[in-house]
Amino acid sequence: MAIAKRLAAEFIGTALLLAIGGGATIAARRLAAGDAAMALLVSALVGATGLAVLILTFGNISGGLFNPVLTLSEAWRGKLRREHVAPYIVVQVAGALAGVAAVHGMYGLDLMAIPRQASGGGGQWLGEFVATFGMVCVFIGCGRARPVVAPFAVSAYVMAACWFSSSSAFMNPALTLARSIGEGGALRLADAPAFVLSQLAGAAAATAVFIWLFGPARTAVRT
Amino acid sequence: MAIAKRLAAEFIGTALLLAIGGGATIAARRLAAGDAAMALLVSALVGATGLAVLILTFGNISGGLFNPVLTLSEAWRGKLRREHVAPYIVVQVAGALAGVAAVHGMYGLDLMAIPRQASGGGGQWLGEFVATFGMVCVFIGCGRARPVVAPFAVSAYVMAACWFSSSSAFMNPALTLARSIGEGGALRLADAPAFVLSQLAGAAAATAVFIWLFGPARTAVRT
Amino acid sequence: MAIAKRLAAEFIGTALLLAIGGGATIAARRLAAGDAAMALLVSALVGATGLAVLILTFGNISGGLFNPVLTLSEAWRGKLRREHVAPYIVVQVAGALAGVAAVHGMYGLDLMAIPRQASGGGGQWLGEFVATFGMVCVFIGCGRARPVVAPFAVSAYVMAACWFSSSSAFMNPALTLARSIGEGGALRLADAPAFVLSQLAGAAAATAVFIWLFGPARTAVRT
Amino acid sequence: MAIAKRLAAEFIGTALLLAIGGGATIAARRLAAGDAAMALLVSALVGATGLAVLILTFGNISGGLFNPVLTLSEAWRGKLRREHVAPYIVVQVAGALAGVAAVHGMYGLDLMAIPRQASGGGGQWLGEFVATFGMVCVFIGCGRARPVVAPFAVSAYVMAACWFSSSSAFMNPALTLARSIGEGGALRLADAPAFVLSQLAGAAAATAVFIWLFGPARTAVRT
Repeated sequence: MAIAKRLAAEFIGTALLLAIGGGATIAARRLAAGDAAMALLVSALVGATGLAVLILTFGNISGGLFNPVLTLSEAWRGKLRREHVAPYIVVQVAGALAGVAAVHGMYGLDLMAIPRQASGGGGQWLGEFVATFGMVCVFIGCGRARPVVAPFAVSAYVMAACWFSSSSAFMNPALTLARSIGEGGALRLADAPAFVLSQLAGAAAATAVFIWLFGPARTAVRT
Repeated sequence: MAIAKRLAAEFIGTALLLAIGGGATIAARRLAAGDAAMALLVSALVGATGLAVLILTFGNISGGLFNPVLTLSEAWRGKLRREHVAPYIVVQVAGALAGVAAVHGMYGLDLMAIPRQASGGGGQWLGEFVATFGMVCVFIGCGRARPVVAPFAVSAYVMAACWFSSSSAFMNPALTLARSIGEGGALRLADAPAFVLSQLAGAAAATAVFIWLFGPARTAVRT
Repeated sequence: MAIAKRLAAEFIGTALLLAIGGGATIAARRLAAGDAAMALLVSALVGATGLAVLILTFGNISGGLFNPVLTLSEAWRGKLRREHVAPYIVVQVAGALAGVAAVHGMYGLDLMAIPRQASGGGGQWLGEFVATFGMVCVFIGCGRARPVVAPFAVSAYVMAACWFSSSSAFMNPALTLARSIGEGGALRLADAPAFVLSQLAGAAAATAVFIWLFGPARTAVRT
Repeated sequence: MAIAKRLAAEFIGTALLLAIGGGATIAARRLAAGDAAMALLVSALVGATGLAVLILTFGNISGGLFNPVLTLSEAWRGKLRREHVAPYIVVQVAGALAGVAAVHGMYGLDLMAIPRQASGGGGQWLGEFVATFGMVCVFIGCGRARPVVAPFAVSAYVMAACWFSSSSAFMNPALTLARSIGEGGALRLADAPAFVLSQLAGAAAATAVFIWLFGPARTAVRT
């Protein structure tokens, strides 16, 4: 598949992912009327469902990564060409911003002014590390052992991480950035770097464990 | 499969789809007693579950479309004969009306007098466009890459769209029509055309993207 | 597989199905503390999940029917020997009673004194007819087209039917009987026959439709 | 696969399983603000989802048991070498303790001081026996008939058991032990042995039933 089509798929997929996650979060908070558990139940279910569906839809075109840490992990394991890393990350970030813009268009800006969920600190950074570590374990381990169900496994893990982690489980630098811009974001822009560093550390640890377990990736570079 | 049997499958499937969606919406509103998030959680889960099951049950007979925009998209991509488009749409609309009638029989007419959910406007039309665009992306993209799981992916997307879209995510002209007739519908009949136009535009955009990505459909016309 | 092992599988499976459904209903009502939508959401999800798991566990031994109307439908379509119909129904009813007894042992009898859910009448009988009609459509149609996912489809349909039907969606004479005995049942024993008749009519209609669509079952009698 | 890698997989998997289950329980109780049904709905869904994902991720390395009663059942059926039983159980217990420690690190110790759920007694021991009996039936029966879906079936059963059983459905001695240590555990350490005995009895009964149904396991010892 030509690189232009792969980048288009990453862009559309990341944009729809953020539109689904952001729109559902707004609708859930509005309808739940203060019931925080119901709001998170809906956000986590709908966001994870959207992720599974988008991997199934765009995965065979671009890999369906939608996430810079997975882009880097794939390149480290030799499954993505190094010269494609930067373009992938650029369109992932651009898609995330487009998705947030679609949410603004659907719901209006003022509705985005929701309370910030995350502010960092040791417990949250540990949570982000553990959550991303587990997500990359599932991405690599299930993607190797049971590739057919990997989209569902990654999605299901993300749903679980939204609940078990103390950090809101962003696990994705593009999403972290897009949701920390502007007044209504989920975290402050100044707090974003520490989250991204925790994500990179968790992803690196998981990638290292699986390289120890199985050696370098078996399959060829995606061309 | 003879065209009469295929039309029977589209009719029964669309009728059961509307009976499931409509009955669940009534039961959920009644039991949820004002908890709007719970009512939508149940309606979205049950309606999407019904869709998946009905595609699995009738898909190998008629395609399991149950939706005029998918009928048109399939015809554009050369996967449905043009002379079958009109009969398909007729039985889809008739089935939708039969499903609403079954709900009236089960619950009585007065219970149908629920508040109208949708009334249109720019944000809702954008929502309907984005929701239908994504649904047709999933229908074509997953149907091409992973046909075995496509019924689940379309269903899961519909559940997500019920939450993320600002428009109630009808995404289906037959459903839009059947639920805008009479006193207890989900939207006013006068608002229906703008929703249907947004649905057609979203479906056309997604179909065009996938024709660009992959060219014309690979498989033969369903006969 | 020897008939004794098949009957043992139907007995254990039906008993676990009723233990799961009954225990979850009690726990859900107790924890939900008056939130009727939450109680039904949990009962429907857990009961349907239990059904899927039990079909996957015992299906290759006995067919995983756990339900007299499916036993009769299978016999009509030539997939179950006629002389096995009566023993199957006997162990299905016995298993259902054993499952209710296990619930009594776990929770104590007084907790079973929950309000009766269903009392019959035209709308409920229509609901039971439609629900059972759809269930048998899914059982036959998906079982023929996509046998690998049929356990999930039947289970998902049952979850949906718990919500959309006006009748509580028993859809199973053994379950109807076991849950109408004693003080704490879901319906009165005197109301049970009309429910069972509606179930038989819905199952017969769906079986007839699929015999028209596909002719007699393709596969041999299970021996 | 070398035994060191298999033990590492059991350790990481059991630790993540307890981190997911414990973290989600804390988050759910905090957000649910007294809604006990919502808290259990979330804990059961997230814990079961985590289990499915971890079996898919680590199952092809170590079997993905994460549970001493499954370790013993597999050894009885000749599918695990007897000399591996003790090391497996040791790392399962160590992993469970590590998972609880991760939850403490993410959330702080005081948040762990949640009310004890279980205290034993005849109804709870029967519940633990029935729940473990069913879990091992699903593990063996579905693992034999439909191995590809067994991770989902076991996970779905665990979700159901959290609801239907009167005993909190621990079903796992390593989990029982790790969650009975310290101030904030789910049960008292003094109550743990009776739960473990009920688990062993349920597992033994189910293993015996399936040895009667099918004879010894067909496949070779995992080496």
